[in-house]
Amino acid sequence: MRLALGLASRGLGNVWPNPAVGCVIVREGIIVGRGWTQPGGRPHAECHALAQAGEGARGATAYVTLEPCAHHGRTPPCAEALVAAGVARVVSAMTDPDPRVSGRGHAMLRDAGITVAEGVEEAAARRVNDGFLRRVSDGRPSVTLKLALTLDARIATATGQSRWITGAEARRRVHLMRARHDAVLVGAGTARADDPDLRIRDLGIDRQPVRIVADSRLGLSPDSRLGRSAREAPVWLLHGPQATEVARMAWAAQGAELIACESDPMGRIDIADALRQLGARGLTRILCEGGGGLAATLIGAGLADELAVFSAGHLFGADGTAGLAAMGVTGIGAPDWVLEHATPVGADLYHHWRRRRG
Amino acid sequence: MRLALGLASRGLGNVWPNPAVGCVIVREGIIVGRGWTQPGGRPHAECHALAQAGEGARGATAYVTLEPCAHHGRTPPCAEALVAAGVARVVSAMTDPDPRVSGRGHAMLRDAGITVAEGVEEAAARRVNDGFLRRVSDGRPSVTLKLALTLDARIATATGQSRWITGAEARRRVHLMRARHDAVLVGAGTARADDPDLRIRDLGIDRQPVRIVADSRLGLSPDSRLGRSAREAPVWLLHGPQATEVARMAWAAQGAELIACESDPMGRIDIADALRQLGARGLTRILCEGGGGLAATLIGAGLADELAVFSAGHLFGADGTAGLAAMGVTGIGAPDWVLEHATPVGADLYHHWRRRRG
Repeated sequence: MRLALGLASRGLGNVWPNPAVGCVIVREGIIVGRGWTQPGGRPHAECHALAQAGEGARGATAYVTLEPCAHHGRTPPCAEALVAAGVARVVSAMTDPDPRVSGRGHAMLRDAGITVAEGVEEAAARRVNDGFLRRVSDGRPSVTLKLALTLDARIATATGQSRWITGAEARRRVHLMRARHDAVLVGAGTARADDPDLRIRDLGIDRQPVRIVADSRLGLSPDSRLGRSAREAPVWLLHGPQATEVARMAWAAQGAELIACESDPMGRIDIADALRQLGARGLTRILCEGGGGLAATLIGAGLADELAVFSAGHLFGADGTAGLAAMGVTGIGAPDWVLEHATPVGADLYHHWRRRRG
Repeated sequence: MRLALGLASRGLGNVWPNPAVGCVIVREGIIVGRGWTQPGGRPHAECHALAQAGEGARGATAYVTLEPCAHHGRTPPCAEALVAAGVARVVSAMTDPDPRVSGRGHAMLRDAGITVAEGVEEAAARRVNDGFLRRVSDGRPSVTLKLALTLDARIATATGQSRWITGAEARRRVHLMRARHDAVLVGAGTARADDPDLRIRDLGIDRQPVRIVADSRLGLSPDSRLGRSAREAPVWLLHGPQATEVARMAWAAQGAELIACESDPMGRIDIADALRQLGARGLTRILCEGGGGLAATLIGAGLADELAVFSAGHLFGADGTAGLAAMGVTGIGAPDWVLEHATPVGADLYHHWRRRRG
């Protein structure tokens, strides 16, 4: 199952709106098929592995990181394929909460006489499937917030210098993180100030994440890097009712997709509404790369699920720019964030935190 | 030598103004004596180990983490003791830069026919001897700055709540850190706001570090916890010329030691002068526990040598109190701080950084 989970994670960022699934088929102690959800979401992992196993699947055990699907979608149900291939036993990490599946896949296997074991390595599978599960349960993608900070959590000096705080290795790690997410999200201030491209560079990766800007007034120039490259890789703009017709036309002309969102009382994008709309479009995993205002809004709304923090060996002091805007926190309870792991990345320290459940 | 360095570190915080030295005596592959600088600085490590070895030292090899002393101080020279004990070979990690020694210890051994190897594990020995070496080279103690911060480097919420940001394990770790330093230093603002005791509690440790407050105006009340406990464990007050006679008298009456320092142009303690005076009094290792103003002053003056950072899984936002005051940093060069290690401590992340040399 660990191998299957490793295979599953290969699909992260590439398979939305589908879950990234892994499948390993073993007969008499020998791996006869390995599969994972292919780019774009199909073939599914099971079919991919069965194709490799061929006749070897007969009487074998299939390890799957998510319940095989039972419904006819764009592909025939994987549960049917496993039955047809003559698999004797299926070990499954977890039930698929998708209402079209939700136990029916396991039942279809059992009805065909296949032995089914459920819940094996379920916690790890929930981790890999986090974005997919969040979309099914809450109708929104999971959100990882990237913070690249000095040791005193600044993102620019008193005079506005911000390049580079973290080192080349950390910046490359961010590109790898982009590749494992369906989309990258930044606020309008960051988009205007940095004019970022947000594409993955220098990693030999073709697929680019959807690039999203939360820009209530649609003030970012269509002649920005994002605007100029909108036909090369998708750009989606979250805007509020205050965005002008002119701006919307100009962005549409560049090839960007416009998503009209509700505004919050301060005239910013209502981030909960925006994430619901992104979930409705199929996104399961979003990497938010700032700025501090959008990050604070996401955290304050309880909509940031993970923090990916790079701490660089700089100290800028309180006159530097804070990495997170005001949040109006008053009391101190138990920590909201649970440390997952910490490791050096180049000269920087990378630490990953997950929002405490409950 | 690694064992000797481990023994040496037992003395840290207990032996000022002396260096914390370790000594292991080995004969025919068997450890016949182990010693380290004893509390208060004597006996020295070599004498401690030789006393344990007795006749076993004859023909043995002695591993020492610092060149044996060659001068008659409060104890006879250790080099003489090693000669008298009949040691055949001495393996030494580094030369003692103290001008009273500075190669004379090694020479005394060689003159007596003892084989001497120098520079074994020197980098590690320099680490252990850091405070002692700093005092010899710069006339000041080494300074470790402790920062206990949220992930966005805050030390209090927008409404001033600060207890507790880090967990019980991290706070206990701080008490262990106090035990390995000669003194604990805080700024006047922190002393007034928190009324700290700064003694080591609940660790079965008798010796307390010197408790130092940098309080240019001497505004901290002699009836504070520090004032009331000044006869139980030392309290030293760094004050400027503006401290009133009344305040000085009151603190002296409590048993505190008053150290008159120069003021900087902003009326604060001139921290370089203060550290020189503390070095002159014999301190080799200081742990600064804040607040943000003193921390920024130390860093800005290049007088903070190490950062001991606890990052707690909280985010308070930019309206929380910054852990470091303004520093006027403008450009961004290579990082000033080099990561030494990072490890979870309870629910918090501990990371230790050392100022880059050069």
